[in-house]
Amino acid sequence: MTYKTQMDAARQGLITPQMEQVLREERISKAELLARTAAGRIVIPANVHHANLKAKGVGEGLSTKINVNLGVSEDCCHVDLELDKVRQAIALKTDAIMDLSTFGDTRTFRRRAIETSPVMIGTVPVYDAVARYAKSVEAITVDDFFDTVQLHAEDGVDFITIHAGLTQVAAARLKQSPRLTHVVSRGGSLLLHWMAANQVENPFYEHFDRLLEICRQYDVTISLGDGLRPGSIHDATDAAQIQELITLGELTKRAWRAHVQVMIEGPGHVPLNEVAANMQIEKKLCHGAPFYVLGPIVTDVAPGYDHITSAIGGALAATHGADFLCYVTPAEHLRLPDLNDMKEGIIAARIAAHAADIAKGLPGALDWDNAMSYARKELDWPRMLELAIDPEKAAAYRASSQPKDRQVCTMCGDLCAVKRSRKVLEGR
Amino acid sequence: MTYKTQMDAARQGLITPQMEQVLREERISKAELLARTAAGRIVIPANVHHANLKAKGVGEGLSTKINVNLGVSEDCCHVDLELDKVRQAIALKTDAIMDLSTFGDTRTFRRRAIETSPVMIGTVPVYDAVARYAKSVEAITVDDFFDTVQLHAEDGVDFITIHAGLTQVAAARLKQSPRLTHVVSRGGSLLLHWMAANQVENPFYEHFDRLLEICRQYDVTISLGDGLRPGSIHDATDAAQIQELITLGELTKRAWRAHVQVMIEGPGHVPLNEVAANMQIEKKLCHGAPFYVLGPIVTDVAPGYDHITSAIGGALAATHGADFLCYVTPAEHLRLPDLNDMKEGIIAARIAAHAADIAKGLPGALDWDNAMSYARKELDWPRMLELAIDPEKAAAYRASSQPKDRQVCTMCGDLCAVKRSRKVLEGR
Repeated sequence: MTYKTQMDAARQGLITPQMEQVLREERISKAELLARTAAGRIVIPANVHHANLKAKGVGEGLSTKINVNLGVSEDCCHVDLELDKVRQAIALKTDAIMDLSTFGDTRTFRRRAIETSPVMIGTVPVYDAVARYAKSVEAITVDDFFDTVQLHAEDGVDFITIHAGLTQVAAARLKQSPRLTHVVSRGGSLLLHWMAANQVENPFYEHFDRLLEICRQYDVTISLGDGLRPGSIHDATDAAQIQELITLGELTKRAWRAHVQVMIEGPGHVPLNEVAANMQIEKKLCHGAPFYVLGPIVTDVAPGYDHITSAIGGALAATHGADFLCYVTPAEHLRLPDLNDMKEGIIAARIAAHAADIAKGLPGALDWDNAMSYARKELDWPRMLELAIDPEKAAAYRASSQPKDRQVCTMCGDLCAVKRSRKVLEGR
Repeated sequence: MTYKTQMDAARQGLITPQMEQVLREERISKAELLARTAAGRIVIPANVHHANLKAKGVGEGLSTKINVNLGVSEDCCHVDLELDKVRQAIALKTDAIMDLSTFGDTRTFRRRAIETSPVMIGTVPVYDAVARYAKSVEAITVDDFFDTVQLHAEDGVDFITIHAGLTQVAAARLKQSPRLTHVVSRGGSLLLHWMAANQVENPFYEHFDRLLEICRQYDVTISLGDGLRPGSIHDATDAAQIQELITLGELTKRAWRAHVQVMIEGPGHVPLNEVAANMQIEKKLCHGAPFYVLGPIVTDVAPGYDHITSAIGGALAATHGADFLCYVTPAEHLRLPDLNDMKEGIIAARIAAHAADIAKGLPGALDWDNAMSYARKELDWPRMLELAIDPEKAAAYRASSQPKDRQVCTMCGDLCAVKRSRKVLEGR
């Protein structure tokens, strides 16, 4: 191979097999895909060791992608259940899965997940460093951190979250402008703990070139984590968050010089009126790198319904520039999600992504809606159910409540406006 | 009484008992409430015969309100079940209930609902005209329509939907610019049918002064219906919709001259990128009258999840000027909602309304979120569950998955970022 990474290939004008896969799924030209991948505005996370990957692109002009989080943890250590989640998530059409395992034999689970999955797999190596070394956080060494990154890269992980922007400078902002909810990123809080205990700089910032070397070798996309994302509406868009983002923008340029692909991770908890500004400032400070957001959720008061609060924020975020939505489930802020929570989270995220694709005018996005609306006008129930984002749930609702007239539904019954207006306007 | 309607009173500078109720709930001055009610920018739906009403205001500078639809229909004619819904909807903190009954002894149900309810009650008299006269739609007379309005007014209905803007001129637009989904408003399609069969003008447009007389006598707020709201993303913001809105703006001025309170009803199915424009054009064409929207839902493809598609659209709509959100349930497009669907719909609508109130900077809106975030930072679980928008669901989630360490939750377990960062930053 004459190239190391997808970005490297694009810069040489080479169409890779992974790019071919992207081109089959998206309405974008070869020239656009090459130019944007070369410029870092599109990433194609595709570890050279992820053999059965069906690669997808994330970024400008592509459909909005979604991610599912899962993994084995101390309070919920059922490997088979989590592998079942992997399969279910794929069946429910997620575009990516992050394995956030923090307990037990994380490597076995990771390798089986990668083996099972044609969708891209992401991880957070810092979690795994804690799991692997099972000692006090402060005693983890810099080599431990990087050995873990190396292991994930070898195993075939397509993208890794690295909180390299939570530097001492950024941490100082937390003290200057105290927050209501401090640090709510797990990786961020672990690094903050490690840095405070050892009185040193963030290891991934300090040794960023070492990270780039590993990522270039396997073509691991770096997802620059937002360790200082706000954990409450109160803390949104504050100095600490933006300070970290400035650093992420600087690191992005360094990665690009090494032909390493980069995404940026974003908030979090953001009021609706600040969502567009957050997208714009990321695109500016990070030079157009794809934006991967967690939510954002637009109010703090709805635990049990954060798939909805995040669908609101995610739809608006993706309309204004976010490229990749991390799902949030109804279990957020309460417990680990179960299989049903995962499903609710995936559907909500897919709704947000699709609504944004329509709003952005993504070519072809409206075809699905138009097909559904045509089926509605025709009172074609089998087709409506088939086209529904969750055919199973739609069919169950329909079956549970049978109208006297099978053409209509029990919502309006004999007063069905669709039937009546078709009669008046089309004479049938 | 020296005044007929709340608007009339406001124009005389009188603070009514209903205004006192509004002032207790909202952070707005007496002068602002009087000025905006006088100008039609706030309505206080309060029929003089609704004895136990606790009045609420809808409009500029007030919190976003939500409405629940229910009622007895042919496919689901259980009066007691629907009355149970009334009680449940009130317990779940809806601000309004529309009784959309279309079958059986509608008057008994309506009177019991009004008697039961301290929240404002709305109806669509055209539906009831069909139920009452149980004959072919075209045979209903103009007097039948107005007798039904009179009956609802006498019974104590606080606001009525009247599709007076679906005129022959507006109907002509449907023929000029055909739609994918014709007319999806029940009331709209009934009037279109009636007008086409009888070759006459819309009765409520033709005899609008007759309507104003009844509404002024009982202080019934007119909710000018959008019979031509789009029923698909494809049809959003089209000529027919806007033609009708122009007429609604003209009728609004006529109502205001008679001191009759007016809201405007709005779409429907609207892509996310057209939501703000829809709010702005309503406020312009209808001279600042409060906007009452159904959804809007931002994609057509998610039957079974339209509480989510409408929460996205509703939150954005209310941020940009909508004052009143009609809930949409997961059952939309599939069947009549059951009790659980109603609950899902109410919570989703309340989330949208609250997210918008935060975004608009409504004084005090963020207090709830800040209290929740403080409880989160303190790991104060009883307080978090108490503050949750649905304490019951949040508590059930929490109870279903117990962490080893009771301070945290199973989402992160020992890696809880809140606990760790508090330790690092506060030393506790």
